[in-house]
Amino acid sequence: MNSLRQFTRRKALQSLAVPPSQGFSTIRLWQRHFNSTPAVASRLAGIDPSKLTVTKTSSPKELTPAKDLVFGKTFTDHMLAIEWSASNGWDAPRIVPYQNLSLDPSACVFHYAFECFEGMKAYKDNNGQIRLFRPDKNMERLNKSSSRIALPTVDGEALTQLVGELVKLDSRFIPSARGYSLYLRPTMIGTQSTLGVGPPGSALLFVIASPVGPYYPTGFKAISLEATDYAVRAWPGGVGDKKLGANYAPCIVPQLSAASRGFQQNLWLFGEEEYVTEVGTMNLFIALKNKETGQKELVTAPLDGTILEGVTRDSVLGLARERLAPNGWTVSERKIRMSEVAEAADEGRLIEVFGSGTAAIVSPVRNISYKGKMVDCGLKEDEEAGEIASQMKNWIEGIQYGDEDHKWSYVL
Amino acid sequence: MNSLRQFTRRKALQSLAVPPSQGFSTIRLWQRHFNSTPAVASRLAGIDPSKLTVTKTSSPKELTPAKDLVFGKTFTDHMLAIEWSASNGWDAPRIVPYQNLSLDPSACVFHYAFECFEGMKAYKDNNGQIRLFRPDKNMERLNKSSSRIALPTVDGEALTQLVGELVKLDSRFIPSARGYSLYLRPTMIGTQSTLGVGPPGSALLFVIASPVGPYYPTGFKAISLEATDYAVRAWPGGVGDKKLGANYAPCIVPQLSAASRGFQQNLWLFGEEEYVTEVGTMNLFIALKNKETGQKELVTAPLDGTILEGVTRDSVLGLARERLAPNGWTVSERKIRMSEVAEAADEGRLIEVFGSGTAAIVSPVRNISYKGKMVDCGLKEDEEAGEIASQMKNWIEGIQYGDEDHKWSYVL
Repeated sequence: MNSLRQFTRRKALQSLAVPPSQGFSTIRLWQRHFNSTPAVASRLAGIDPSKLTVTKTSSPKELTPAKDLVFGKTFTDHMLAIEWSASNGWDAPRIVPYQNLSLDPSACVFHYAFECFEGMKAYKDNNGQIRLFRPDKNMERLNKSSSRIALPTVDGEALTQLVGELVKLDSRFIPSARGYSLYLRPTMIGTQSTLGVGPPGSALLFVIASPVGPYYPTGFKAISLEATDYAVRAWPGGVGDKKLGANYAPCIVPQLSAASRGFQQNLWLFGEEEYVTEVGTMNLFIALKNKETGQKELVTAPLDGTILEGVTRDSVLGLARERLAPNGWTVSERKIRMSEVAEAADEGRLIEVFGSGTAAIVSPVRNISYKGKMVDCGLKEDEEAGEIASQMKNWIEGIQYGDEDHKWSYVL
Repeated sequence: MNSLRQFTRRKALQSLAVPPSQGFSTIRLWQRHFNSTPAVASRLAGIDPSKLTVTKTSSPKELTPAKDLVFGKTFTDHMLAIEWSASNGWDAPRIVPYQNLSLDPSACVFHYAFECFEGMKAYKDNNGQIRLFRPDKNMERLNKSSSRIALPTVDGEALTQLVGELVKLDSRFIPSARGYSLYLRPTMIGTQSTLGVGPPGSALLFVIASPVGPYYPTGFKAISLEATDYAVRAWPGGVGDKKLGANYAPCIVPQLSAASRGFQQNLWLFGEEEYVTEVGTMNLFIALKNKETGQKELVTAPLDGTILEGVTRDSVLGLARERLAPNGWTVSERKIRMSEVAEAADEGRLIEVFGSGTAAIVSPVRNISYKGKMVDCGLKEDEEAGEIASQMKNWIEGIQYGDEDHKWSYVL
């Protein structure tokens, strides 16, 4: 586990493809910043589930009726908390009653956005078993995020096990109906109390859990998007592909701006070519027919650093390659211009468009406002979802709730 | 004040130069997000200094000896705190003993980086009077930052007055020696407890104060920079020109990477043209002679959205136009390629290079590592600062400490 931390941090540096050393001496500053030579670092403790302590609440909450659940508003009785310091590594994990965090006002999370998170869910299956969906992907991404902002990494299996303990303890909060789940939010914040800008000397990893209902309680509802070409969410060489807090606050004003004109979300275009990247907080999939060959193609933007590596995106791609490709579909991770989408719509070649994310699984798109015109995304007037989106939702939900036995489902 | 908030928020939206409305109905989502129609918003309270309450500490801290002060490590006895809610506006300001913040773990500041800040200083002059330096510029920038991430704006004069009350109450912490000051950190964070991604319904503005010593206690020490072309800090259409927490955490790993090769800071280049933008957390100035005419020119990057609008940058520019231009200098805010700087160095036309920021005022640069070569920035071997940098430090410090009577100095 120590070595994983070391490795990932080093990898984060290496992945920046820096020029070779100029023969300058000194890892002096590096050492000062980390307060640890490699020798010290290797003695740092990893996350150790065997050291978990559990303090149960003395005042259990009343359950919110399932129909009244609002995303991320109510939380379970407990939370998981693990402290980290640059000198000692990870402290013993604790499950404690859900409670406020008490932090010095100079804590670096308040000033320099040392924070990253994950979004995942726990599901109750028909046999009352609790399941996670591809937790390994979340852990992998958490480490990519944290190491990019000089926060520690975690042993993914150890953290998954501890998340499982929290979920089992609070399992009464998971409604037993299809579409319901327990949303889990692993979060890591820098806690060092100093205004100096440098790598945090201490951090807190916590996991909170919020029972949630189906995103579309009465069936799909296709959304309208506004293509945003005046503000930029992410760029090559930046951090738009990491799940950092830093990527979220700046998106709100453009989103409100789109909302003020009646659009549910904005679609981020990138560059002069106006490449389609992401929708609000979802990845985007476009199903269209090839102009020349008529070949059906499911397209999503490639992982070039400007889009988030969505777990649902990866799941849609995997299922499409497994289950759509044999039926004549091409599945592509490639750059696609907004003008190409608009042209396909004009020529009747746009089959359907949908967003993908943990909250909704898939979110069908009715139309996209682009350069003063509405691009119709292929749904019939009385239709709220296309065939691919509907299939994907059924396939993924079937795995999440254990109807289908699949390696992506992780029984606790 | 209410109207200022309204105005600035509207301005933030307008400044994004969105396309005209598509004739779609509904400010429905907008209203839902803000929980307030314009009519409600206009009744929101502004910051009212007359409502200030002061709770003094019962355990005053011991002063840290001036020579032991470390930037942003020790804080004064008190802090200023003002809460805001979307339904009521700004609450009564409070000065309270310096204390931890207690926040729900779902508070949006921990997840989506709803946070922005300012850095400013209070100085004790030879007559024992306390002075601020251009606080109006900090307030203006705070409002640009906060409105860009859907946080409320403030009445700058009211907040300056309240900051003054905090400084006067804790004035014993300001050492009376040249180079010492009280660093002030106004910070605004979103406090709403929800994992839904939207504009914060509540916020906290707080100001903490940290006594600091001179950046160069034993005189200037010129620094070595590494030009960074593999990671990108900011992008046109992004938020790199705002003082958001989001702009800081992502800079640490590239900075550590430069430090591991012996460089004190990294220099952010932008684009294929490799334009010089910023140094670590400072703006950059380059003094050079024109290739054709020999004309002396002081250059800094223009405010094109990719650099922070530094108050010290603006002060250096103002003083240069007033005091250097009459002596034959051209003062330019223009894009400058790193290759142009390297060429000037090769041809003996590079006069000097320095960073500018609140912490050091100016920070002379000895050399810059660029494409495997060291660009010598014009200092003699036994020299730690050029003439312009030294002059600028003396001029600005003279104003800050009240030696020179100047409109930029604000006596409390």
